[in-house]
Amino acid sequence: MAIERLAVVGLGLIGSSIARAVKARLPGVAVTGHDASALVRDEARALGLCDRIADDPADAVEDADLVILAVPVGGMADAARALAPGLKADAIVSDVGSSKAGVGAALRAALPDHLVIPAHPVAGTENSGPAAGFASLFEGRWCIVTPAADAPADAVAALTGFWQTLGATVDTMDAAHHDLVLAVTSHLPHLIAYTIVGTASELEEVTESEVIKYSAGGFRDFTRIAASDPVMWRDVFLANRDAVLATLQRFNEDLTVLQQAIRRGDGDKLEAWFTRTRAIRRSIIAEGQDDPAPDFGRKH
Amino acid sequence: MAIERLAVVGLGLIGSSIARAVKARLPGVAVTGHDASALVRDEARALGLCDRIADDPADAVEDADLVILAVPVGGMADAARALAPGLKADAIVSDVGSSKAGVGAALRAALPDHLVIPAHPVAGTENSGPAAGFASLFEGRWCIVTPAADAPADAVAALTGFWQTLGATVDTMDAAHHDLVLAVTSHLPHLIAYTIVGTASELEEVTESEVIKYSAGGFRDFTRIAASDPVMWRDVFLANRDAVLATLQRFNEDLTVLQQAIRRGDGDKLEAWFTRTRAIRRSIIAEGQDDPAPDFGRKH
Repeated sequence: MAIERLAVVGLGLIGSSIARAVKARLPGVAVTGHDASALVRDEARALGLCDRIADDPADAVEDADLVILAVPVGGMADAARALAPGLKADAIVSDVGSSKAGVGAALRAALPDHLVIPAHPVAGTENSGPAAGFASLFEGRWCIVTPAADAPADAVAALTGFWQTLGATVDTMDAAHHDLVLAVTSHLPHLIAYTIVGTASELEEVTESEVIKYSAGGFRDFTRIAASDPVMWRDVFLANRDAVLATLQRFNEDLTVLQQAIRRGDGDKLEAWFTRTRAIRRSIIAEGQDDPAPDFGRKH
Repeated sequence: MAIERLAVVGLGLIGSSIARAVKARLPGVAVTGHDASALVRDEARALGLCDRIADDPADAVEDADLVILAVPVGGMADAARALAPGLKADAIVSDVGSSKAGVGAALRAALPDHLVIPAHPVAGTENSGPAAGFASLFEGRWCIVTPAADAPADAVAALTGFWQTLGATVDTMDAAHHDLVLAVTSHLPHLIAYTIVGTASELEEVTESEVIKYSAGGFRDFTRIAASDPVMWRDVFLANRDAVLATLQRFNEDLTVLQQAIRRGDGDKLEAWFTRTRAIRRSIIAEGQDDPAPDFGRKH
């Protein structure tokens, strides 16, 4: 199964990075793009992101072998219904959403006669929009594919090969397990970061100006992911509610334990906990999932 | 008041960075170093960090105009008592601890006949030890000085000038207010990061290997500060307990509000919150307190 024509629907950070990566690594593949926003389409045309930018979603996917939906997860079903009239019978429809069980069900309900294979490239930055994307975004990152049990092996292999060509390593996983794993490694961290940045900016005793000035003490690290796209993240929390709330419950338990250790002055408990967490970062660096340079390689 | 001889007690990340920065920017100042660990002293000698490394703390501070204690805040009083016999009558004793009211009181109790002016350079990386330091660590960062109300102006000016020469911008602040500000911008972020990294590594449903593999979804950002020195941070939480617990209470309130919004499916509340936090990062970048490059400038 060869992918010769690709359609990307949604041309923000991820969609525009796919278009750029395909141009760089699969120059033989024709890429058509679409975005619901006329402003974004104009920007994509000016950036030369795709071979063609279509104003109409059904027009965008005509003849496409692979259609990738790169819109907020709450907008997937509407986007799928809008493009359905143009879809080739044997096209593969995939997506890049950060939650998979609900998105897969929504896409299959919207496109009952088509093959849907959900996917999630675990990559991104805090920036949004077509200008924020870049071709190397997926290099060395993981892409998780969550096919239904009856998905044709050749179509799964084609989608897997596509992501590998863009530089990703592909894992296949059950959608429900994906949602639990990502609740831990992505959704809870975002929720915590959004919370603490909000907390810090609304204290009476400490001004926002002080929070900004002295943010190099640790706070600034949290502001990066708390600067991520608000609509995308609203949708992720609504779509993956149960796994997020379950994980949050575990976080709250642990926070209460450490809170009590501080209140009681139990230094041994704190030190033991802090020693254990240090090892995790070493493993992440050893696995190539973060920069070994101190301070993320920030310039000093 | 001229600082011609400096003693640095504690040669980890911060102490060794001070020694390096003085060598680079104040070549006329003689620097003597000491560390309670013989291994660290040997490493400091091999690195050529100071003009002289003294085995004995009292010997290290002899003739020093300025003595800077760069040890975990729980060890400040003992370190001060150990060096007291060698201290010149008119020496300024300062420190770099991340909590100031308790440390200031402990140092003044240990050195009742000497001038103590606490200070806190808001800078660091997740690495520890004499090899982790570098001369430019304080450039463009803030250093907060918390003199007592009756501290001699010329001594405060000398300490301020010293930190400015090392590249920092100096603010003067009441010690109690410092502790509240830093509880928000540094201590709470570290506590939250330590918590979530511990939570993620102990779930039954998601393996540690999965957490590491998919950490680029946001989790890896937290692992950096959760890799900070365990003893240093144990001491910070014990020393600044009240401000940390008060700030944590506010964080918990906000987290409960967002948790409820997720449970109820209140997308408007989530989106409004996430939009507000995005603005804070822009301000931090505008003030030069973080790298404007996406993803902290990590290599892609």
